[in-house]
Amino acid sequence: MKKFTSVADIGNIQQAVAEALKVKADRFAFKEFGKDKTLLMLFFNSSLRTRLSTQKAAMNLGMNVMVLDVNQGAWKLETERGVVMDGDKAEHLLEAIPVMASYCDLIGVRSFAGLVNKEDDYNEKVLSQFIKYSGRPVFSMEAATGHPLQAFADIITIEEHKTKQRPKVVLTWAPHPRALPQAVPNSFAQWSVAAGYDVVITHPEGYELAPEFTAGATIEYNQEKAFEGADFIYAKNWSAFADPNYGKILSTDRSWTVDTAKMALTDNAFFMHCLPVRRNMIVTDDVIESPRSLVIPEAANREISAQTVIKRMLEGLK
Amino acid sequence: MKKFTSVADIGNIQQAVAEALKVKADRFAFKEFGKDKTLLMLFFNSSLRTRLSTQKAAMNLGMNVMVLDVNQGAWKLETERGVVMDGDKAEHLLEAIPVMASYCDLIGVRSFAGLVNKEDDYNEKVLSQFIKYSGRPVFSMEAATGHPLQAFADIITIEEHKTKQRPKVVLTWAPHPRALPQAVPNSFAQWSVAAGYDVVITHPEGYELAPEFTAGATIEYNQEKAFEGADFIYAKNWSAFADPNYGKILSTDRSWTVDTAKMALTDNAFFMHCLPVRRNMIVTDDVIESPRSLVIPEAANREISAQTVIKRMLEGLK
Amino acid sequence: MKKFTSVADIGNIQQAVAEALKVKADRFAFKEFGKDKTLLMLFFNSSLRTRLSTQKAAMNLGMNVMVLDVNQGAWKLETERGVVMDGDKAEHLLEAIPVMASYCDLIGVRSFAGLVNKEDDYNEKVLSQFIKYSGRPVFSMEAATGHPLQAFADIITIEEHKTKQRPKVVLTWAPHPRALPQAVPNSFAQWSVAAGYDVVITHPEGYELAPEFTAGATIEYNQEKAFEGADFIYAKNWSAFADPNYGKILSTDRSWTVDTAKMALTDNAFFMHCLPVRRNMIVTDDVIESPRSLVIPEAANREISAQTVIKRMLEGLK
Repeated sequence: MKKFTSVADIGNIQQAVAEALKVKADRFAFKEFGKDKTLLMLFFNSSLRTRLSTQKAAMNLGMNVMVLDVNQGAWKLETERGVVMDGDKAEHLLEAIPVMASYCDLIGVRSFAGLVNKEDDYNEKVLSQFIKYSGRPVFSMEAATGHPLQAFADIITIEEHKTKQRPKVVLTWAPHPRALPQAVPNSFAQWSVAAGYDVVITHPEGYELAPEFTAGATIEYNQEKAFEGADFIYAKNWSAFADPNYGKILSTDRSWTVDTAKMALTDNAFFMHCLPVRRNMIVTDDVIESPRSLVIPEAANREISAQTVIKRMLEGLK
Repeated sequence: MKKFTSVADIGNIQQAVAEALKVKADRFAFKEFGKDKTLLMLFFNSSLRTRLSTQKAAMNLGMNVMVLDVNQGAWKLETERGVVMDGDKAEHLLEAIPVMASYCDLIGVRSFAGLVNKEDDYNEKVLSQFIKYSGRPVFSMEAATGHPLQAFADIITIEEHKTKQRPKVVLTWAPHPRALPQAVPNSFAQWSVAAGYDVVITHPEGYELAPEFTAGATIEYNQEKAFEGADFIYAKNWSAFADPNYGKILSTDRSWTVDTAKMALTDNAFFMHCLPVRRNMIVTDDVIESPRSLVIPEAANREISAQTVIKRMLEGLK
Repeated sequence: MKKFTSVADIGNIQQAVAEALKVKADRFAFKEFGKDKTLLMLFFNSSLRTRLSTQKAAMNLGMNVMVLDVNQGAWKLETERGVVMDGDKAEHLLEAIPVMASYCDLIGVRSFAGLVNKEDDYNEKVLSQFIKYSGRPVFSMEAATGHPLQAFADIITIEEHKTKQRPKVVLTWAPHPRALPQAVPNSFAQWSVAAGYDVVITHPEGYELAPEFTAGATIEYNQEKAFEGADFIYAKNWSAFADPNYGKILSTDRSWTVDTAKMALTDNAFFMHCLPVRRNMIVTDDVIESPRSLVIPEAANREISAQTVIKRMLEGLK
């Protein structure tokens, strides 16, 4: 595997899940794969789960790991070519990328959407430069338009818990005080359709996601109707994608918060969220703490999705 | 050992010191204990000694280590249940704790007293949630009311240097420009009484520590009288514990600074301090640089106390 | 090797380069050298290349590595003796150094020039205290007056690419929006003279470097004349060294920027720069992206220079 940025990179999803469950059953069985190999984890944005789960995954595989917070221990990086660099950015990605690549074997990159320039975001301006200029296998640790390690972990979790061949999986928008990227809902929609689920997306009007990510899913603006008969409720906030409101908050309507009454409309659905979650904005305390909440096993599977991806990349190095 | 937050967790102190000295004599002898085990070190506050000594201790034991500065690489965590999380805190401890726990085998937590709400501090609001919700062995890397790894290192150091069966050990308050928690003096008082020393605590009136930590020690408000015949002088600043002055600075009286004249009143006592120390506030240059100063060996023993505690926790995992 | 702060510490340069190339040919061949040994990397200033390349080098040698950003995860350190520490600095170097040393076997230190007090900078006030008080082998990861790991990597790179026994190597000043230390040009001048090259230094008047670093090099104020027949162009900005302008920017003259027209004056010279580089200030896009640009291989050799130095220090521990 040379890159991991979208569902297309994982190949057959059922095979990938089977491999992930094998990894989960004995996570130290592949320690020779990472011998004398180094993972560089590069953060342009904050991280808790991704940081720890990916580092753990790489160590499970016997790798050395270096973690760099670009805007903390290092300095700001210029991303535009042709600029006279007389401002606050001390180094250009065109140098920084091949240099960093020279010290490692694999690169994980986190670089969120700026939510200002839609074209830059949806071109994956930062991540795509790493793929182009590093000469190393690169995986997304959440980029501008996708969070495939999260979506892969979500699918593993659904596969572990589903009781129907083709469960009804509902992705619901919920309110949040800040403007958030569309990366998580984009990937979840794309991966859950690819996994063969009956996927319904519900959100207030104006919150339509990019069609290339939601193809195959049903859009239902009535949240209660969407919840009917659902097996899995996946809550998430995102900002508007459609012009002219790209990156904007159109609603903070708390009637979209997932609560016990809404969960009662489902077929005893499991509750999912990628975390971090704003309690009592996205979901009430009682729903997230209920026995049907999968938020912790889902987060725990981040180690497994990361390890499966890194393992495949290490195999590709040979 | 399932938790390490106070002297009660260490069991018999003499046995613990004996084990620590065995660890010190050959610190790589137990490298198999930590194989495929991961320590998560979590810092809500800054650290130098604790960070390095604990990481070193875990690596001595063959462990993988992940270090997270919660307020830097990640984000602020909510600690109150029932809150509508529409402010600056992006995640709740109730999610963050089990998630982080899922990526590791042991957790070390640093979380200082806020010095605003005494009840929160003395209930160890943050540390106790880690113990309750992580499902992992948890050790304190200094919490609101105690710093047991420091106290254990202090006791090891005293045992290495004492020439009397029951030395006179004096804990003295000294001035400092900032309001500091009572964690270090609390633990030192508690551990040195438990170790069987003749413990005297001296401080200006109003600086009385919590009685549950000082039980068995003598309080002497006259510093010079307290120093008479002392074998060990342990200097430390702390803010007031007693209401209504909890967390406040009551004195910055430099006549309490430990200097050569005062050390001359002792029985050629050793000088101790947990570091970091404000020179010429807490102690003069000449005392801290004298041959009787133990501040460096005491800090070096932080690696040993940490390694002994982590070793016991690893033994408990089997 | 007990310290590595200047060219004198490396001994015979040709032997050092030969050893470096041996390391480069099989960088995992010496993994036993670092077994149960710990490197502490201490940053008083930001770093990207040095941080990653040095960590990678130490891991290649089988070492454990601890990285500390002094002003982030820890706190500010006092460097003056005799001060009453009632300000914002929580700990004195006189304690911090031996304490940190007690947790490791080797220490790497980055501490830039303050560019305020020339005497402090040129006495290497911080680095020299580490050498004096740590009791450990100490190497510079760029200090106030030198950056020897960079210069060593530069020499390795020149040796790999030179086609003449004694190439003409030109160090040229170039403009930059900020006042930068003289560490890199000082070391490059010193090492390239020691390597036996024909060294020419060119800069606007007033930018003369300290004579102890430039002895043996020719100073040529006419940049175009300096470039004639050059085999290697090494560009770098620095602030003034000479009094009364120490640490000041005397010129931001963009006519000193290295461009294609100037490179045409050379003998098809290679272009070098230590990075990070301000594009279109120091050098134009087309020169740095040309096939004669060595900036990436030069940076990649930072891993090799660091590994060679650390390997020698580990040999010295036995």
